[in-house]
Amino acid sequence: LLEARTPVVTFFGKAWLLHVHKVLRTSPDENLAMIADTARYLKDHGREVIFDAEHFFDGYRDNPRYALDCLLAAQKAGADLVVLCDTCGGIMPSDAGRIVRDVIAQTGIPVGAHFHNDCGVAVANSLAAVEAGAVQVHGSVNGYGERTGNCNLTTLIPNLVLKKSLPVLSAPRLKHLRDLSLFVDEIANLRHDPRAPFVGRTSFAHKGGMHVNAVEKLPRAYEHIPPETVGNFRRILVGELSGRSNVLMKATELGYRFDKDQPEVRKILDEIKRLESEGYEFEAAEGSLDILIRKALGRHRSFFELDEYHVSIFKSSKLHTVDCEATVKLRVKGQPAHTAAEGDGPVHALDRALRKALRDFYPHIDKMSLEDYKVRILDSQTGTAARTRVFIESTDGHREWGTVGVSDNIIEASWLALVDSIDYFLLRNRK
Amino acid sequence: LLEARTPVVTFFGKAWLLHVHKVLRTSPDENLAMIADTARYLKDHGREVIFDAEHFFDGYRDNPRYALDCLLAAQKAGADLVVLCDTCGGIMPSDAGRIVRDVIAQTGIPVGAHFHNDCGVAVANSLAAVEAGAVQVHGSVNGYGERTGNCNLTTLIPNLVLKKSLPVLSAPRLKHLRDLSLFVDEIANLRHDPRAPFVGRTSFAHKGGMHVNAVEKLPRAYEHIPPETVGNFRRILVGELSGRSNVLMKATELGYRFDKDQPEVRKILDEIKRLESEGYEFEAAEGSLDILIRKALGRHRSFFELDEYHVSIFKSSKLHTVDCEATVKLRVKGQPAHTAAEGDGPVHALDRALRKALRDFYPHIDKMSLEDYKVRILDSQTGTAARTRVFIESTDGHREWGTVGVSDNIIEASWLALVDSIDYFLLRNRK
Repeated sequence: LLEARTPVVTFFGKAWLLHVHKVLRTSPDENLAMIADTARYLKDHGREVIFDAEHFFDGYRDNPRYALDCLLAAQKAGADLVVLCDTCGGIMPSDAGRIVRDVIAQTGIPVGAHFHNDCGVAVANSLAAVEAGAVQVHGSVNGYGERTGNCNLTTLIPNLVLKKSLPVLSAPRLKHLRDLSLFVDEIANLRHDPRAPFVGRTSFAHKGGMHVNAVEKLPRAYEHIPPETVGNFRRILVGELSGRSNVLMKATELGYRFDKDQPEVRKILDEIKRLESEGYEFEAAEGSLDILIRKALGRHRSFFELDEYHVSIFKSSKLHTVDCEATVKLRVKGQPAHTAAEGDGPVHALDRALRKALRDFYPHIDKMSLEDYKVRILDSQTGTAARTRVFIESTDGHREWGTVGVSDNIIEASWLALVDSIDYFLLRNRK
Repeated sequence: LLEARTPVVTFFGKAWLLHVHKVLRTSPDENLAMIADTARYLKDHGREVIFDAEHFFDGYRDNPRYALDCLLAAQKAGADLVVLCDTCGGIMPSDAGRIVRDVIAQTGIPVGAHFHNDCGVAVANSLAAVEAGAVQVHGSVNGYGERTGNCNLTTLIPNLVLKKSLPVLSAPRLKHLRDLSLFVDEIANLRHDPRAPFVGRTSFAHKGGMHVNAVEKLPRAYEHIPPETVGNFRRILVGELSGRSNVLMKATELGYRFDKDQPEVRKILDEIKRLESEGYEFEAAEGSLDILIRKALGRHRSFFELDEYHVSIFKSSKLHTVDCEATVKLRVKGQPAHTAAEGDGPVHALDRALRKALRDFYPHIDKMSLEDYKVRILDSQTGTAARTRVFIESTDGHREWGTVGVSDNIIEASWLALVDSIDYFLLRNRK
């Protein structure tokens, strides 16, 4: 630990006799001696020393005297801060607050607190600990951790700053909270929780007609904070509960202008509802929604017509290979184009063959690329065949857009999302 | 409302002047009159009447007198219960508890409480409200609801029963909690949250070598409740942090017997780590893990050998069709088998062709079927090609098992998971 040359060293020990006896298999006195020896050794080497008292809350409920002795042993040996840990995650907020208050009153030691989310109240426990006088709280971005996770800092921090007026982060830094959350999920290769408080995709999403109507009038009516505070933004969802207000707001976002009473609004709504019943979802598929609106308005023109595609995947155990080839036969601006390409997988091969066919006509096509590809198997409502929904995220380096395709066949669903993505790009970049 | 013939009718109204003025666009007195008229009308028709006071907490902080007047108007007109709603989800637990306590002290009306999870503390707020004397709390299974959702009942209920000793559900019914949660997700076609407190897949999962070691000795050491209480169970994960203990416990679960110091344990661990670095994940893939262990022990025999497979997807816009065909060339028990089949998608076609080839040799193959198919695109660590992980869940009507495959090519990844699934079934059902 010393060789890491950090100014602060944290070590952990047990504060629950059950663990001392049954897991460590040592005596209560020996446990206290180990805690003291470790703290003293680190302190003697000039470090700031933090003692994490594992299972403190369970230990305190079981034997408050011994749990406190563990803290005092660390303090007397020089520890600067003791952290009360709820290692099993079973404590309730009212108990957490009361125990932190008791510890501070009885020992005068500066305390921190560390909560797991097994009862879904790690954030509330941390808030209660801070209210009771804790000067440090532990947690992780997005709440990663053992079992149900640790206290979620992307929830706790805005609560401390915005609700408790504690200067944990400055306002300009708080604006990066959503980006931080997305970045850490990306690195960890984990799916972002769309319902995460403050930072989730749907945290400031309004769907019901009545809410949208009120939010249009006065955001504060249905938003506990301005979404920008934490780097998030308001979303108007076009979904099953869509009312005319929603479609109009979305169409306005996309640059269309029409009146609530125009028959086109009803036509667009009907088309959205029909496709949603087939498994489509437009909430994250702006590109497909834009094209849907254009088609419903009779304003869409295709950039190419498909005659045929053919994808072939061949594995040979003798040759130790998996080959993947796609061919596409199109008409572009009235002229035929017939191309073939290989790829790592079928969608990659299709994408390459399609670009090859379009490049002569739309040379800027290579400015766009696919960023993400997601597959969801849907149980069809009729209970017969499983349907597949493919969601593609694309980028041109400046902006990103999502498109969606649904089919019984994963390749066809991918094709539909791919075509929307390319159509949307070409639409926005007409030369 | 009366025509629904329910014994109880709940209606909602506004308790925040901001909404009265800016959203309803009416006067404070008119709002009180509307609340009273509605309550009286329903009461006069013999109903139990509940008044949901929307935005109550925001209203109370803004103008406590007016917020209380809304409740009193409902009560005087006959309402049996008033529900304090945190419609925007911005309240903190200590405020929630204090306000519920104040309301009860000042009005004597029986109160319920309704919290949204915008600050991640809806469960804690509900607990605080109950502690303060609320006799009803609102929520939803799995916390579904607007924005970040409502209070999650699958978290709140076990907290009330197990931590607060309130007889909300009997012990035998509480054992169905996890099943209920999975069932409702299934119906809603939403992904189950693996980290959900109490009911999530990883809520009682132990991964770190040290934890597993302790849990082996004494479950209570790292579990705040016995998992069976809520219909969940302990899981020993074999993952990146695998120690020998984990592999041994998993192998024991699978029916193997060997000692910690046998060189095979190291061999299995190394193989797991190698595959995990390629993108494999065995936590939910028991079938693939079993086969991996058998292979590492030299005890695996294949039920067939693949020579080649070929999958072909053809779309014709003229014929309005998407056709999908698979052929497989195998050797089964030394004999060649060459079959072809069509399917809704490429994996379906491959599965059917493979069954056709195996049916003559293993007629019981049709007792198993694929239940679920999941695809995850992984960004490879080297940053070059995207890898695909396919996870298949299969069943024979009695038990379920998961298998996993990873490749650059989605079809090959599916094939690998499919072969493991069939191998595992045939292994367990040797005739």
